[in-house]
Amino acid sequence: MAETPIRFGILGCADIARKLSRAITLAPNAALHAVGSRSLDKAAKFAAANGFPPSARIYGSYDAVLDDPDVDAVYVPLPTSLRVTWAVLAAEKKKHVLLEKPVELNVSEFDRIAEACESNGVQLMDATMWMHHPRTVKMSEFLSDSKLFGQLKSIQSCFSFAAGSDFLQNDIRVKPDLDALGALGDVGWYCVRSILWAANFELPKTVTALRGPVLNEVGVILSCGAYLNWEDGKVATFHCSFLSNLTMDVTAIGSKGTLHLRDFVIPFEEEKASFSAGTECWFTDLVTGWVPKPSEHTVLTDLPQRMKYYVYADQKFKQENLPQEACMVREFSRLVGGIKGNGLKPEKKWPTLSRKTQLILDAVKASIEKSFEPIEVVG
Amino acid sequence: MAETPIRFGILGCADIARKLSRAITLAPNAALHAVGSRSLDKAAKFAAANGFPPSARIYGSYDAVLDDPDVDAVYVPLPTSLRVTWAVLAAEKKKHVLLEKPVELNVSEFDRIAEACESNGVQLMDATMWMHHPRTVKMSEFLSDSKLFGQLKSIQSCFSFAAGSDFLQNDIRVKPDLDALGALGDVGWYCVRSILWAANFELPKTVTALRGPVLNEVGVILSCGAYLNWEDGKVATFHCSFLSNLTMDVTAIGSKGTLHLRDFVIPFEEEKASFSAGTECWFTDLVTGWVPKPSEHTVLTDLPQRMKYYVYADQKFKQENLPQEACMVREFSRLVGGIKGNGLKPEKKWPTLSRKTQLILDAVKASIEKSFEPIEVVG
Repeated sequence: MAETPIRFGILGCADIARKLSRAITLAPNAALHAVGSRSLDKAAKFAAANGFPPSARIYGSYDAVLDDPDVDAVYVPLPTSLRVTWAVLAAEKKKHVLLEKPVELNVSEFDRIAEACESNGVQLMDATMWMHHPRTVKMSEFLSDSKLFGQLKSIQSCFSFAAGSDFLQNDIRVKPDLDALGALGDVGWYCVRSILWAANFELPKTVTALRGPVLNEVGVILSCGAYLNWEDGKVATFHCSFLSNLTMDVTAIGSKGTLHLRDFVIPFEEEKASFSAGTECWFTDLVTGWVPKPSEHTVLTDLPQRMKYYVYADQKFKQENLPQEACMVREFSRLVGGIKGNGLKPEKKWPTLSRKTQLILDAVKASIEKSFEPIEVVG
Repeated sequence: MAETPIRFGILGCADIARKLSRAITLAPNAALHAVGSRSLDKAAKFAAANGFPPSARIYGSYDAVLDDPDVDAVYVPLPTSLRVTWAVLAAEKKKHVLLEKPVELNVSEFDRIAEACESNGVQLMDATMWMHHPRTVKMSEFLSDSKLFGQLKSIQSCFSFAAGSDFLQNDIRVKPDLDALGALGDVGWYCVRSILWAANFELPKTVTALRGPVLNEVGVILSCGAYLNWEDGKVATFHCSFLSNLTMDVTAIGSKGTLHLRDFVIPFEEEKASFSAGTECWFTDLVTGWVPKPSEHTVLTDLPQRMKYYVYADQKFKQENLPQEACMVREFSRLVGGIKGNGLKPEKKWPTLSRKTQLILDAVKASIEKSFEPIEVVG
């Protein structure tokens, strides 16, 4: 039975909101309903350029979006320093909250958001899109297979891109009053999430920053790294940077298997995504090659242009592999629909993952501030 | 003009010596001449099984190999703790020395070998085979291209294999009196070499071990990691282990480019080897993919079976891509031939690279022993 789509309001016209607007359009159970900006003109232009229907509401403030009784959920891509204000306000107005990452500047601030969402019975989810890619499901299956992967031993993650001079001067991600966590909060967020994901979200015992982070002249991190140690001996390292060529690696190594991918946040292509999996790899006689070699696994994604041929039917779309951001919107909307329509409780899994990720970011920052001492992680 | 092949004597019948025997057979300017073992019977069986010609000399001691006036060069795959004794003795007998890795247990011991080789005018080279793979030449070209790769920013390297219980109980690499550096000296050697190679052999300023190395009950490292910091902000991390599935990654990231390979020590196949190179990668509009995507580069290797069709002609073979270990033997033999035939001096590059690698291993070990403090590297 087709349900009423969840109606989204978007707070602000950030560049990333263009992608989310498309995702909302693509998701079978979501609809673009409103956009608010401090500039009404900007909001109107944004709506016109991003597939909003003629009936969509265009607002000259974020407040107006929250006051719209027809808005079920808001997407909050505002700078990190504004997130707590608007996310808490949204929750208080009973709007479900899809929040950009990093969810906050530190865990205490995030807890204010999470508490507001919980006490108002609304769903909270962060916008870590790759978590929802169908490839991620397949990779999780591999990692949790004791015969194919065994016990997790180590993880390496890296996300960097070479920001241009305009970005390094003007982007909100290099400004201490906007996205004060810099590269750690932006690209580092993904590295930390990938590590936690591979570790089945078990928190490490300690986090130690690597010496030599690069900061800009106002103290915002442009490049840094850290490593995580678990009680059972697992170790993970990551490197994140605004100063190196685009790179997105995750390598997870178990006692029996190895997982590799080089495009974990944004797959090379939207149409398909691959990962490499090796199990009990060893050497040929005379050590001149590998037996078996790792194998490549590809997951196909349904292209947007194909989707227009489908008649709306929630059940059907659920079986399709949408682009990852549309999968995310679909999952979020499914949860919201369950709360709205069936009186279900918000799914705690998602804010829990956000909190764990933020906790590690906090520890990395603390370790940098404490001369690279290991920081104990208390969940 | 064809030169007389360099005649090799092999000290001991280590498993790796089987591969080197084949390499000596394959290299156009080298010949298997002698093998010595503490057991004459073992030496005879080794020679019979590994393509030694009927004229080859079979000896019941290492000394006898060194005393054979027809031996030009020795290959020393003895356990690390025996290397200094036999390598120094070989040099004193004017034998050129191809030395397994780790070259020694520490730099002071290695310096004794290097000094003995230098004062006796013989070539010293360590047996890090992948350095001689034709792929390595291609990758070096990419890394040194300022337009394609830019300035090196970070390196990640990993080499692990899942040793079986017999290895973990009995292999020389877990014995404090034989290969006391354990995983650090074995798989870690390659990681460190790959990092130095990517950094054009510039030594880092400091080396810091990661917390949480795994030691066996007699204190030998089974798994560890470390990171290196350079004066200019470059950073490298590595992880090496006997306890995880076979994995061999090098990732070097520059301001403009990224190099990836997953089989840097032993290519997946002997016939060909690939690497991935990306330059100025960025996102598509809406950040749904990459433009350009990294591209795969493959280097073909001439297979042994093809080689029998070639008439011996040094110049011709020099243009062929032999398997990496045969390239190594060919290069070593070329240098030895130059010293023997043309009165050239030994090539200092190779012992210098061995020493730098050993210096970093020493620093990792010192950092572990000093509670993971950064260790300054003095070249």
